[in-house]
Amino acid sequence: MSTIGTPFAPDTIKALLFDVFGTVVDWRTGITNEAAAVAAQHSFQLDAVTFADAWRGKYQPSMSQVRDGKRPWTKLDILHRESLDELVQEFNLPALTEEELDHLNRAWHRLPPWPDSAAGLTRLKTGFIIGTLSNGNIALMVNMAKHGSLPWDVVLGAEPTQHYKPQPRTYELSAELLGLTPSECIMVAAHNDDLLAAAAVGFRTAFVARPTEYGPHQSKDFKAEHNFDIVVDSMTELASKLGV
Amino acid sequence: MSTIGTPFAPDTIKALLFDVFGTVVDWRTGITNEAAAVAAQHSFQLDAVTFADAWRGKYQPSMSQVRDGKRPWTKLDILHRESLDELVQEFNLPALTEEELDHLNRAWHRLPPWPDSAAGLTRLKTGFIIGTLSNGNIALMVNMAKHGSLPWDVVLGAEPTQHYKPQPRTYELSAELLGLTPSECIMVAAHNDDLLAAAAVGFRTAFVARPTEYGPHQSKDFKAEHNFDIVVDSMTELASKLGV
Repeated sequence: MSTIGTPFAPDTIKALLFDVFGTVVDWRTGITNEAAAVAAQHSFQLDAVTFADAWRGKYQPSMSQVRDGKRPWTKLDILHRESLDELVQEFNLPALTEEELDHLNRAWHRLPPWPDSAAGLTRLKTGFIIGTLSNGNIALMVNMAKHGSLPWDVVLGAEPTQHYKPQPRTYELSAELLGLTPSECIMVAAHNDDLLAAAAVGFRTAFVARPTEYGPHQSKDFKAEHNFDIVVDSMTELASKLGV
Repeated sequence: MSTIGTPFAPDTIKALLFDVFGTVVDWRTGITNEAAAVAAQHSFQLDAVTFADAWRGKYQPSMSQVRDGKRPWTKLDILHRESLDELVQEFNLPALTEEELDHLNRAWHRLPPWPDSAAGLTRLKTGFIIGTLSNGNIALMVNMAKHGSLPWDVVLGAEPTQHYKPQPRTYELSAELLGLTPSECIMVAAHNDDLLAAAAVGFRTAFVARPTEYGPHQSKDFKAEHNFDIVVDSMTELASKLGV
């Protein structure tokens, strides 16, 4: 069933759907800088990069509870905030006001794009529908796009489909909401597992290498580990490969 | 509860959410031209403008069945197609292939913007989140935007909320998906009823006059009939009033 290694016809593609955290934006730099700023403001000693890694470390476990049906649909802004409340204890942060906590939680809405993202997406938008297929919720994606000049045509993924990746329905319903078959869509991601899950339901696949996403702790996804349809090092290279 | 006539503070506004059919695009011209083209191709005599009006005439009744719970959620592309299948009989159209019928049904995806829409929205996007709050489904809105260079940040409204306007949940949930309160959003429409429904749940309101939407059959909505927050004749005038 998977499209991995099957013949690929680029002229049948109507939409490119993107993973966002790590693929389009650099969450580690963004969260580190915002956490460091909060710490400095309170004259508090914080290993901000460890804090960022710890926050991201709670990401998959928090979504698992929703995926496994242990709790009803809950958007990522809320999961991020629950994780932050835990981190306040774990890192012995000083007492932050509700306004400060909310602002820090929205650091995910202000993540910086990788240097090639806005330019590449702007080119890709001239030839294709470009949309997010992220686990981030709609408000998060829209605010991030305004902040980083990411010219999405549409926000799809977890919240519109009420399923967290890598559940197959996240990919299937995102294509369906565009009135497209999975084979008319390319999933673009820096993560081998995300592309395998998309390929399993019929998406075509493009791997964009982001070997510094996790800094010195990166342990996987240095390169494409499967026979994806397209393998590139940047969004601008992806645009060139697709002729736009 | 309605915001009509209550004090309005423009600097609290984060998002502008737009009605689309009639407000942003000229459905009557678009459908008339595409129906006339199909008729010409088949050397068939068709009063294309009457055909367009008849198709639009089936719009509210078809959504009422969903609003009233007589049928489950059904997206507008499907309601449009059911109405088209009725019109084929009512206008004694020649036998069209499935491909021709599907292409004609997608005329709604290719509606021409009013002359001021793209320029006005491009300006408004620099200062606000701009999104659709239409009864059209996501694929319809995305394809229309690509066709008419409408630079939406986000597609909201009926399909993401599973409610057809003027049901209050369509407006309330659209604001909620942006993480905003209704009072942080302006509903922009050429229809008094749409704005009244939005104001009833706390949206601010902007009326854009489109007095030729229904051609010689226009019977209402020539002007704002209530004390809306903003009243203009074009999207570019709306941009100027909002200082962008």
